[in-house]
Order: sequence, then C-alpha cells, then structure tokens
Amino acid sequence: MCSAASEPSLPPTSVRVGVVGGGQLGQMMALAAHRLGVKLTCLDPGGLASPTGKVCGAAVTGGLADGAAIRKLAAEVDVLTVEIEHIDTASLAAIEAEGKVAVHPSPRTLATIQDKLLQKRHLSTVDGVSLGDSWHTWGYPLMLKARTLAYDGRGNAVVRSAAEAESAFSSLSRGGAVPLYAERWAEFVSELAVMVARARDGTVVTYPLTVTEQRDSMCHTVVAPAPVAASVSEQALAALAVARKAISSLWGAGIFGVELFHMKDGSVLLNEIAPRPHNSGHYTMDACVTEQHEMHLRCVAGLPLGDTSMKVAAAAMYNVIGSADGKLSTTLAAVDAALAMPCAALHWYGKAPPKPRRKMAHVNLVGGSRHEVAIALRKLEAIADAANGAPVVSIIMGSDSDLPCMKAAAEVLEQFGVPYEITIVSAHRTPSRMYEFAREADARGVRVIIAGAGGAAHLPGMVAALTPLPVIGVPVKSSALSGNDSLLSIVQMPRGVPVATVAIHNAANAGLLAVRTLGAADPTLRRKMAAYMESQEAEVLCKADKLEKGGFRAYLDGA
Amino acid sequence: MCSAASEPSLPPTSVRVGVVGGGQLGQMMALAAHRLGVKLTCLDPGGLASPTGKVCGAAVTGGLADGAAIRKLAAEVDVLTVEIEHIDTASLAAIEAEGKVAVHPSPRTLATIQDKLLQKRHLSTVDGVSLGDSWHTWGYPLMLKARTLAYDGRGNAVVRSAAEAESAFSSLSRGGAVPLYAERWAEFVSELAVMVARARDGTVVTYPLTVTEQRDSMCHTVVAPAPVAASVSEQALAALAVARKAISSLWGAGIFGVELFHMKDGSVLLNEIAPRPHNSGHYTMDACVTEQHEMHLRCVAGLPLGDTSMKVAAAAMYNVIGSADGKLSTTLAAVDAALAMPCAALHWYGKAPPKPRRKMAHVNLVGGSRHEVAIALRKLEAIADAANGAPVVSIIMGSDSDLPCMKAAAEVLEQFGVPYEITIVSAHRTPSRMYEFAREADARGVRVIIAGAGGAAHLPGMVAALTPLPVIGVPVKSSALSGNDSLLSIVQMPRGVPVATVAIHNAANAGLLAVRTLGAADPTLRRKMAAYMESQEAEVLCKADKLEKGGFRAYLDGA
Repeated sequence: MCSAASEPSLPPTSVRVGVVGGGQLGQMMALAAHRLGVKLTCLDPGGLASPTGKVCGAAVTGGLADGAAIRKLAAEVDVLTVEIEHIDTASLAAIEAEGKVAVHPSPRTLATIQDKLLQKRHLSTVDGVSLGDSWHTWGYPLMLKARTLAYDGRGNAVVRSAAEAESAFSSLSRGGAVPLYAERWAEFVSELAVMVARARDGTVVTYPLTVTEQRDSMCHTVVAPAPVAASVSEQALAALAVARKAISSLWGAGIFGVELFHMKDGSVLLNEIAPRPHNSGHYTMDACVTEQHEMHLRCVAGLPLGDTSMKVAAAAMYNVIGSADGKLSTTLAAVDAALAMPCAALHWYGKAPPKPRRKMAHVNLVGGSRHEVAIALRKLEAIADAANGAPVVSIIMGSDSDLPCMKAAAEVLEQFGVPYEITIVSAHRTPSRMYEFAREADARGVRVIIAGAGGAAHLPGMVAALTPLPVIGVPVKSSALSGNDSLLSIVQMPRGVPVATVAIHNAANAGLLAVRTLGAADPTLRRKMAAYMESQEAEVLCKADKLEKGGFRAYLDGA
Repeated sequence: MCSAASEPSLPPTSVRVGVVGGGQLGQMMALAAHRLGVKLTCLDPGGLASPTGKVCGAAVTGGLADGAAIRKLAAEVDVLTVEIEHIDTASLAAIEAEGKVAVHPSPRTLATIQDKLLQKRHLSTVDGVSLGDSWHTWGYPLMLKARTLAYDGRGNAVVRSAAEAESAFSSLSRGGAVPLYAERWAEFVSELAVMVARARDGTVVTYPLTVTEQRDSMCHTVVAPAPVAASVSEQALAALAVARKAISSLWGAGIFGVELFHMKDGSVLLNEIAPRPHNSGHYTMDACVTEQHEMHLRCVAGLPLGDTSMKVAAAAMYNVIGSADGKLSTTLAAVDAALAMPCAALHWYGKAPPKPRRKMAHVNLVGGSRHEVAIALRKLEAIADAANGAPVVSIIMGSDSDLPCMKAAAEVLEQFGVPYEITIVSAHRTPSRMYEFAREADARGVRVIIAGAGGAAHLPGMVAALTPLPVIGVPVKSSALSGNDSLLSIVQMPRGVPVATVAIHNAANAGLLAVRTLGAADPTLRRKMAAYMESQEAEVLCKADKLEKGGFRAYLDGA
C-alpha cells in the first residue's frame, strides 16, 4: 500500500523559491517558473498586483527593506533570491545564518554589490580583473556616484569642474544622507555586457558577449553576439575571462549581469555587476537555449545549469520606455511596429499606463545574420524616434545671423516629415556647449547633423571631430570674402574627419542631403525622395514645353 | 486637462480573451498572453486550480458543455476561443449570433470538426484536398471511430474481421449512445502535421511541415522540419497546399493543427484537423519566431499575424506522458535527462501527480542540424524507455524448444543492463501474432529484434519483412541437419530484406550484436562493450601466460 521511500511525490523542479522584489525581472522569472514547475512567491509592496505577483499568483505584500516581510516570505519557501539588489541584506544574512532557508546569491554578495564603493574595492582585489585607475584617482571630468540605490543613471552625475562638484554633491547626497564616491570619467569606445551564471557548487558559465547602448543613462539596445572585429576578438575573450573571474570571486548561486567598458587602448575594464537577471540579458529569451530568468531559477534552486548557447546567428533587444510626453500612444509606436514585424518578439510587462523613463516592455529581434537583425533594429528605432518626435536631424549654426540662410534646411526637412531640432552652437563663443552637444547627439538619437557657419567656420569640423555621426557643412556667405572663407574652412578638413560640404549658402541642399542620408536605411524616405525628384523633373519639362511652344520672347514676357 | 480622443489608454494587445477549457494548451496560451499583454480568462471545472487558471489567474468554474458557464465567461471578455473542441458549440453559436462577443474559430468550424464524420464530409468537398477513398469505402482492416469526443486514440478501434466489428461497435458506441463511423485502414508511410494560422480577415499562413510519431495512439515525438528527401519535396509542398486549402475552407480565426498521411504512392491525404494549438506544434515554442499559442491569440484577438519561420535549423519535441506503472519517478526520467541536456527546453504542465497516459510535459530540442537534434532525441527516448523498463530488445523464438539456445542472448543483455522481453512467436503456428508483433514492435519502443528458429526457419525473415527494425537471426541447431537448414533459411534472404545472421546456436553473439547495434547511438553502451572486450582479452592473455610459463602438459593437467 505504501510506495518506496525513494519514490518522489513531486518533480525535481518543484522547489519553492521566494523572490524579493515584484518588478518585470521577477515577472519573467515567474514565466520561467511556470515552465519549469518551480513554485514562485514574490515580496513586493504591490503584492499580487505587482508585475511579478500577477504572473506567479503568490505574493507577500510588503517593502523590500522590511525585515518582517522578508521573514514572512522565507517561512513559505525553500530558497530566497532577489530580482533587485536594493533590499535589506541584514535580514537575509540572518535567515541564511539560521540555515533553514537557502539564500542565493549570498547576502554577502548582495551587500558587497549594493554599495558600489564596496563593490569596486572587492573587485579591485580579484586577480585578473581590471577596473582601470578611474575608480580611485582624481581628475576632471569625473563621475560622482551614490554608493547605494543607484541604477539607470539615477544617483550619478558628471562633474567637470570644482564648481560643478559642489552642487552635484549636495543634490546627490541629499544633504549628506546618501554616501557618495567619485570615479574618473572612463573614456570607453563601447559598453559591453555579459550574463554569467553561477551554480550552487560554484561552477560558472557565461553567455555570449554583447554590446549595449544607453540613452539618457538607461539601457536602450543590446546586440548579441557583440560584433567584435577579428582584430579585437582577443579582447572579447579577455572580457569573458574578466567576467568569469569577477563572478567566481563572489558567494552563492544565481545569474549576474556584468557591465564592461571597451577602452580606446583595446583593454577591457569592469564597470559594475548586477546580482540578478539583467536588461542586457533579455535577448536570451528568444535567442538562447536557456534564457536568463530560467537560468537564474536553475542556479538558485540547485537544478542543473542550462545551455547558454545562442540558437540564432544574431539577436538584438530594444527597450520600450515610457515616453517623455507621458502619452501611451507614443510609447506604443515601437510595440505596434514590433507586432507587425517579422523576426520580432514582444515582451510586455503589463505595468499601469506608462510614466516617462519607466521600462514598459522590450522587443527581441532574431535573425540569420547580424545584418538582418541590425536592419530590423534600425527600423524599430526609427519608428519609435519618429513617434517620440525626437529630432533625427540637428541643425546648428554659429550665430543667429546664419538663420536666414539655414532656415532652408529646416523647410526641406519639414517638407519630408523628418523630425529636426534647430539651435545656435558657437565653436568660438560656446566651446563647452559645442563639446557637450557633439558628444551627446548620438546618444540622444540624432542621426545627422547640419552645421552652418561663416568666416573662419570651425563649427562643422569641430563637431565632426567629436561625433561619429555624419556632419553636413553649410558655408554661410560672408560679407568680406563672399563665403570663400567659410567654404574652405569647412571643406578642407584633414584625412579622417570628413564634413559633407554643400555649396555656399545652399542650406536647402544640406536638408536634401540629410534626407538622402536617412533614406539609406529607410525605404519610405527613399520613395519620397524619388517622388520629389520626379516633381522637379516635371517642373523643368513643363518649362521646356512652354519655351519650345511659345518661343523665348513670349516666355520672357510671361515671366 | 483632457487627453485627445485618439489617445489609447491600453496597449493594442490588451484584448480580453476567454478560453473554453483549462488544460495545458490553455496554460501555454496564458504564458503567451502574459508576454503580449492579452487578458486571458479560462472556463474549466477546475477553475483557478486548472493548469490554465493557475497561470492566467482568472477563471470561471464550470463544465465545457455548460451553456450557462460559457455565457458567464462571455460576459467578461471581448473574444471567446477554445483550447479543446469537445465543447458546447450551440451556446457559442448563440453568443456569436448576438454579435457582442466575437467567437474564434467560428462555432460553425468547431461543430464541423467536432463530429469527425461531418469533418470528413466537409473536407471531401474542398477542391484540392484528398482524403483518399479510405474514409467512405469498406474493406478489412478498417478503423471504427467515434464521431465525437475522440482524441489520443480514444474512441478508435482497428477492426480486422466481421467478428471483431461487432465487439468493437458495442464497446465504442457504449450501447448505441455514441455515434460511430468507419474508415478503411490507411496504409501510410509516415504521419505528417502542419500548423496553420488563419487571421480574422481570412489570411492563412503555414508553419513548417513536421513528421509525427505516435506510440499507443498518442503523440510521441515530432520532428521539424520534416526530413523530406529532395525526391519527395513536391509532396511536401503538396502537403502544405492541402493544409492551406483545408483551413481556408473553414470559418473564423485561430490556429489549426492539420494531420496528414504520407502514403506509399507518394500522395498526401488529409487525416484530421484540430481547431486549436496542437501537440504537433509544441516545437514552435523554442524553434519558431512566433510560437503557436501566441499565434492563436494574435489570430483570435485580431492582432497582426506573427512570423512562422523557424529560427533554428532543426527541432524536435518529445512528449512526457504518465508512465504505465503510475510512478512519478518513471515519468520523471525524461524530465531529469532534459534538465541536464544541452539544447533541451522543458515545458512542465504542473498537473497533479501523473496518471498513466496523462500528458505531463514536453521537451523541445533545438540544434544546428537535423543530425544533432536526432541524436539528442534518441538519447532522451532511450533514457525514458529504460526508466519505463520498456524492452529495447525483443527476443522471440518459434518454439519453447529453442529456449535453451536463446537464453544466452537474454543473459548477455542482462549483463549489459539492456531492458529486453522474451517470448514465443511462431511464423507457422501463430501467423497473426507474428504479423501484429512485427508491425507494432517499433511503435512499442523496441529497437532491435533477436529472432531464433530452427529447420525451415521463417520467423526472422518474415519479421524483417514486416518491420523497419534491425532483426538478428539465430539459427537454432536442428536434429536432422545440425542447423544447416536453419542457417540457410535465415541467412539467404532476398535483396532488400536483410537479417543479421549469427553462427548456428550462437545466441550469445546475437545478444552482443544487439548491444553493439544500440551502442551506435549510446556512448555508455559503447564504453561497456569496450570494457567487455578488454576483459575478454585479459582472459585470453592470462591463459596464454599460464600456457607459456607452465608448458602445455601442466596446462592440460590443470584443466
């Protein structure tokens, strides 16, 4: 009548896991938990109404720093884990010490990572991990950072001078309440990230290396695998080795997001670690055999590690973030586009109507080649940027006296429906503003810059030297030299830093050149350009007809 | 203060969908619904405790044929759909007629498919769809089938004679309560299946063609894409065309599973249609850009169709079915193996402890080549079969007088830990039993047959003629001709039907040959065979040593 003692009554996956936090990372853990048979319960102030609670169907309602609530969660599960690191690690440490409920990753790991200065100090002791010297030596510009509770750019400020330091200090530290630390600004070429999984027995496996792009200090896109040229593939291997070593130095099981800087000199510096599934790993949901949230559950529940390999040739992730105008329709532009696109998968988080800068969803793109995925990603970005009314073209000029000339570029862009911005940036009178403008244009979503200037016209060339974007130069006609000075100042750039220069005072052509540049990746713009050219042709043919039929005297009289 | 009238308050995916049925298909719809932002509610006797209810978190508790319960569900949603076709279509038709809640697929489609005879009659009118003549002409063997409520082999019986017809009729019809119909037995080469999606506007898209394999009339494995030889790729295209036409002839939106027979003459016959996600489409969850449950929701909710293309080169699906012994540990063998295998993804349904023949989970395998996936699938099958104690080798003999010879094969298999069965099957005295045995061995999971016989030894050759499995023949020593008759009867097979013949009376070698045959796909068995061969070598070397050292006289005296 009784079964053998060894007969299991539940599958090996039916571990009860409690997750501190109820956001979208927990939600995606909950989806993985259903597939595996893991029983997930979350702790969140929103309880069952939180993104995680809605999907896992079991929640403790309470704050993430509420020790009593954490204890209540612990009483219901076999393993505790987190989906956010800004939590009460002391309670978790006490629970771990009691030995009844496992805590993964270890509270020691969470406490070390939670305080960014402790994190840097720990990582600087790990053999083979380089943080560069940016984190402990001084110089301007530097980054002033909150030690705790900082993410998505919150709690960080760039300080360019002693004067800026004071105001940044008082605003970030909230009057001394939040401890801060400083890092020297890291001059990286690109940001890399890699997800690393650590099993309970300490085994570490890595996912592919990715390139991440930020906008407004938030993760904007991720491309996997990182398109690393053969010449720097050694650096890529080095990056994976750095990530492995960093995670091996920590305690407990789970998945970790490791952010790296690819520096100008080819070296790879470790930036930060997240002890949980990470935005840079969302691509794994459609691109890898075992996706990151399932991998995290496998790690913390003591199940076999999954397979980190990519099952597609290339993938990308696009974050859908609440638009600045607060309108759902703006945020949804990328969602609508993704639903209708081949090779795209939508992951909607089901959060209440969007707030600006709130992560609402992500879209994964998969394909048989990097090129295919890159095109899809550009299309999605363009649609979203257009909906956001974000300027795709930036028109700048050295002085308001250039405006009568430069307005022709704006008129062309309006004619083609290309979102643009127009402003005054002077290389000689506002050099800092020019530096910032040029440095940040790419990250703001600008794709083409039109710069007009006259005389010793340094603006277009200086901007081109500071941005990877195409810069179109408009030589504004000067009174002294009729624009010859402007033309030569703009067009005679040295090898390596081209400026696409148009005719003297011909800002209309600069606008048309910008449309053609954008059209290279946008068939709709190309069709509009073809139609424009046909209308130009028709206009000329009409005139020719009138001239041929009426003769030149009548023609001149009529005009 | 008020937003524009056109400003949406919810994403386009936030359609409220009600699904009649709360099983695993609804559960996987619920997972897709969370990703999309669709609000799913299910109707099931188990309510929130049903596999679907547990994941979607919203349920009406009631029977699938309970009109009042269906109305209650309809009151809460924008669209009604199903995850099982055995439901009350009259209530759905009434709701559809009222025009407030859309019903997809149309109740007309559901009613037509639900009654298999109506389904066949309808499909026989569709231009380009061939059902063969099997469904309306008579002859033995034939299939007697319940018109309704039949699935997974339930409600079907093979009738080989008039005598069998009577008992099959009374048991299937439950004394006349269930209407039946008959089909002639279709002599197919393989079973194919294809998922077809139909948008609200009637647009039809197909997923790749797959090959399905059944065991005990239940879906056992699915391989995608169907490994169709170039010579029959026209048939594959024909199969997709048949499926498209069949689904185009129906009404309403949704995903459909289309089962096809690939016949001996190369033609493709339509077998049956399921108006919902289908077991043969589970592979899409890890292998296609848009998986079938999400596609179904997109269809019924009026969202854009997804992308049916495969993102991996090859995939397979393995069904985890409650084992016959009712023990969870037996059922879990495949789950344990899948968790530890690369390229495998587990989909556990979270049903209460398994019952025999209950679908508990499925495992998807993906890979860069068909070969890679086939090897993983064979490994998974072998592990599961071994746990089920299912015989992998079948030892048969013509008479119990062959047993003293044949037991040596069984002893070898026990030594290598290969599960086997041993029984008596006579070609001459039990021809029907031999026919059935040979026909069903493959579907029962047998991988190698060892057949022993003496005299006019027809058993091995006849069995080899009736099965695609390798047959090893053991010529049993006869008294009259010392086994020469047995040997020639077994070994002299015509071109096309080989029997692997071993020496007269050498059943041990038949056992070893079976182990080597299985070892071709099983490294563990290969290692065991290598160890066995080493021990044989050691034994001979030991004897040689004794002979060399002691001389032949002492050796012979010692023996």
